Amino acid sequence: MARISAPRSPDPLYARVAARVGQLIESGVLRTGDRVPSVRRASRQHKVSLTTAVQAYLALENRGLIEARPKSGFYVRYRPHTNLDEPNTSQPARRAPANDSNALVSALFDATMRPDMVQLGAGIPNMSLLPVQKLNRILASVARRVGPASLQYDMPPGCLPLRRALARRALDWGLKIAPDEIVTTSGCMEAMMLCLRAVTRPGDIVAVESPTYFGLVQLINQLGLKPLEIPTHPRSGLDLDALERALPSRRIAACLVVPNFNNPLGSLMPSAAKERLVRMLSKREIPLIEDDLYGDLHFAPERPHVAKSFDTRGLVMLCGSFTKTVAPGYRVGWAMPGRFIEKTKSLKFTSTGATATLPQLALAEYMTNGGYDHHLRGLRHAIKRQMEQISHAVAETFPRGIKMTRPAGGIVLWLELPPRVDALRLQAKAHAEKISIAPGPMFSPRNQFRNFIRLSCGEPWSPRLERAIGVLAYLVKQMR
Amino acid sequence: MARISAPRSPDPLYARVAARVGQLIESGVLRTGDRVPSVRRASRQHKVSLTTAVQAYLALENRGLIEARPKSGFYVRYRPHTNLDEPNTSQPARRAPANDSNALVSALFDATMRPDMVQLGAGIPNMSLLPVQKLNRILASVARRVGPASLQYDMPPGCLPLRRALARRALDWGLKIAPDEIVTTSGCMEAMMLCLRAVTRPGDIVAVESPTYFGLVQLINQLGLKPLEIPTHPRSGLDLDALERALPSRRIAACLVVPNFNNPLGSLMPSAAKERLVRMLSKREIPLIEDDLYGDLHFAPERPHVAKSFDTRGLVMLCGSFTKTVAPGYRVGWAMPGRFIEKTKSLKFTSTGATATLPQLALAEYMTNGGYDHHLRGLRHAIKRQMEQISHAVAETFPRGIKMTRPAGGIVLWLELPPRVDALRLQAKAHAEKISIAPGPMFSPRNQFRNFIRLSCGEPWSPRLERAIGVLAYLVKQMR
Repeated sequence: MARISAPRSPDPLYARVAARVGQLIESGVLRTGDRVPSVRRASRQHKVSLTTAVQAYLALENRGLIEARPKSGFYVRYRPHTNLDEPNTSQPARRAPANDSNALVSALFDATMRPDMVQLGAGIPNMSLLPVQKLNRILASVARRVGPASLQYDMPPGCLPLRRALARRALDWGLKIAPDEIVTTSGCMEAMMLCLRAVTRPGDIVAVESPTYFGLVQLINQLGLKPLEIPTHPRSGLDLDALERALPSRRIAACLVVPNFNNPLGSLMPSAAKERLVRMLSKREIPLIEDDLYGDLHFAPERPHVAKSFDTRGLVMLCGSFTKTVAPGYRVGWAMPGRFIEKTKSLKFTSTGATATLPQLALAEYMTNGGYDHHLRGLRHAIKRQMEQISHAVAETFPRGIKMTRPAGGIVLWLELPPRVDALRLQAKAHAEKISIAPGPMFSPRNQFRNFIRLSCGEPWSPRLERAIGVLAYLVKQMR
Repeated sequence: MARISAPRSPDPLYARVAARVGQLIESGVLRTGDRVPSVRRASRQHKVSLTTAVQAYLALENRGLIEARPKSGFYVRYRPHTNLDEPNTSQPARRAPANDSNALVSALFDATMRPDMVQLGAGIPNMSLLPVQKLNRILASVARRVGPASLQYDMPPGCLPLRRALARRALDWGLKIAPDEIVTTSGCMEAMMLCLRAVTRPGDIVAVESPTYFGLVQLINQLGLKPLEIPTHPRSGLDLDALERALPSRRIAACLVVPNFNNPLGSLMPSAAKERLVRMLSKREIPLIEDDLYGDLHFAPERPHVAKSFDTRGLVMLCGSFTKTVAPGYRVGWAMPGRFIEKTKSLKFTSTGATATLPQLALAEYMTNGGYDHHLRGLRHAIKRQMEQISHAVAETFPRGIKMTRPAGGIVLWLELPPRVDALRLQAKAHAEKISIAPGPMFSPRNQFRNFIRLSCGEPWSPRLERAIGVLAYLVKQMR
């Protein structure tokens, strides 16, 4: 008996409307963060009922293309670009000359201070994204309230209200910690320096990710330490198998990792990998110095946990700061150095004596009563949007064959350019066009990543920024 | 022919009045800073005419016992105590066990943070002597004015308005320097650390004064450097002959000196000695790291020059800060590191990234338009007075045979107690009585000065302070 199937019904009307709007998004007419026409307008444009238009938008929302914002309408959602490959797992060279990172860092900073430059170089949010007025108002009011205490030394371990606020917040990082296990510092850089000095001596070997933040490259160099570069995957970070192979062959004094959104990769180590890393190092009594500077800049809804949340033996030294999220110029950070706390406190005293009092008090107040979470949500949204805008523009304009990361957070993109493009020469040409970028060799103690660049997504999208991406693409095409 | 001499006339009336008032001062009835009875009152008290009273006071002024203050009257002038000997030139031990300075420093800081303690320990001015409201108002107004710039990184070499203000002020120190020869830092401690790290490597020998500030003792220790202690004279500071003898026998990487009011001695190197020191070291290409933290706290009218004013070869690295004069909690200092500026800038970046922006801007404004000089005059006067009050109280109450410095500036007194008094035990006993002091061994890498203590003169004179000195004297008598 032949089965008679029901004739396939044509796509319902709402699905056809959804398909048309979806095409506008796929083709880039509507971009991340753009407002989609209102439901009313869509019903007029597509000549359908209001109900059908609403159905169409719900379908697009289910497909993850748009999102509703209360009292505001529908917007195009962030999607990582998918038309460029990611860079491969890095392969650190064994022997290569060290670079003169001082000159590179100076050039980057000089560019950062110039308002006429398009800022694709320094990895910090544009000041327009930070709570300038609010924070300075809090600072002034705290100063009035505490009076003479505002001018007083705040001896290590530092500002108690801030340490209390950090202890409360650490619960979101998967971490139970008491205020007296925390040392406040003059930014994350000081925290990292203190932790490194607490557990190493000049000549010691320190395992680091390749690539890694240029400030850490310099720091290791200046402390007379020897970096051992470990390969990384652009999305999952440190290659644990590679680390495990490296461990038995040499005495490693410490391991320095950025599990949450490595700079420049934006990679995120999965929780299981963090746990394995902590176990692997603990077994050999090797301290893990964990840089969580970017942990709050996650694009997924959940804040990633820190590796220290798996620490049972006080061997993980966690560092962070407010530099990337609230106030670079306040210079307030922290170290949670586990069993090395006494040494860290004592090094803090001979490093800067104390941390400036008022910025710490203001940030404690901001975290407790000032709407820090509200600000973070807005900031994450803005950076996510900016990163998508920049990555789509790069995907559209740069020559075929380049590779680009798909960060799950942080503030930077990492690009692998054609092999013949020298990033240092590209930087020089870009500077001449008033565009600041960070060349790849800065991110390696051994001068690698010669054809890589890092692009910061700290600036809001603008015609000026769009033009700058176009100019960069042109320069790359010229050089390849 | 016999010469007939005129009969000696009896003392004129005004001289007799002056003698009587002078006695009140010598005997301590009237003390430094006390107001002397008005001329009108004196004329009544001594039953002399107004003119005679005025003559008497002018005579006392000529003898340096009192001073006129415009629109206010006559006051007892500061005179160093003279009834106690000064300590001898120090004689550093060749071999001696290093002390656990960490524990000592922690104890001192813990006491500093306790408002129930009488603060004879930490060498900082009491907050009531600092321009709290004015400075915080300036900070708030600067924050409003510069807006987003207040939250921005202030990359090394640091805040230009502040470096300009410092360059102008350095003229008073005998120094011509350009803003781009200055690096701002997070306090003097960071400046000293950067300078030391710029010119030494672990294992190097660093020549220091004996005694020297405990923070520097710790710093040298933590950087893996070897201190070579040079004898000092309590009034003229570093013993240059001793240094000259030490130079040929070993490779000294740097010399670290506090020529203006060494802490704890309060010694002041004469200008000629500073010049000789700079010449002696320059001949051997040895960098001189000069700590000028106390330079502005001079008791004589003239600000002493810095050793760097004799530097012709860029070998003197001058460090200072606002910690002792304006705002300990702002954490703003500077290094003027001569030919080592690039290295210092680069170390600054990996030490704390940058110095907090707002405190620098506020201090620049305060120096330029805020009445910094006016404040300094008042502060110097207050500290000078407090030091005299404390030193006189010590001279009156402590057992015979103790010795005490006669500082020409700074904020601390250095006491040599009877040989059997152990300063660490004395500190413990004093803490139990809620009195904080700094024991001698803190000031030596080799645990010397076991029967010395340092008393801070940062607190205004009060019955509580007077009682504390009495209790200390009692404890010393018990222990000797």
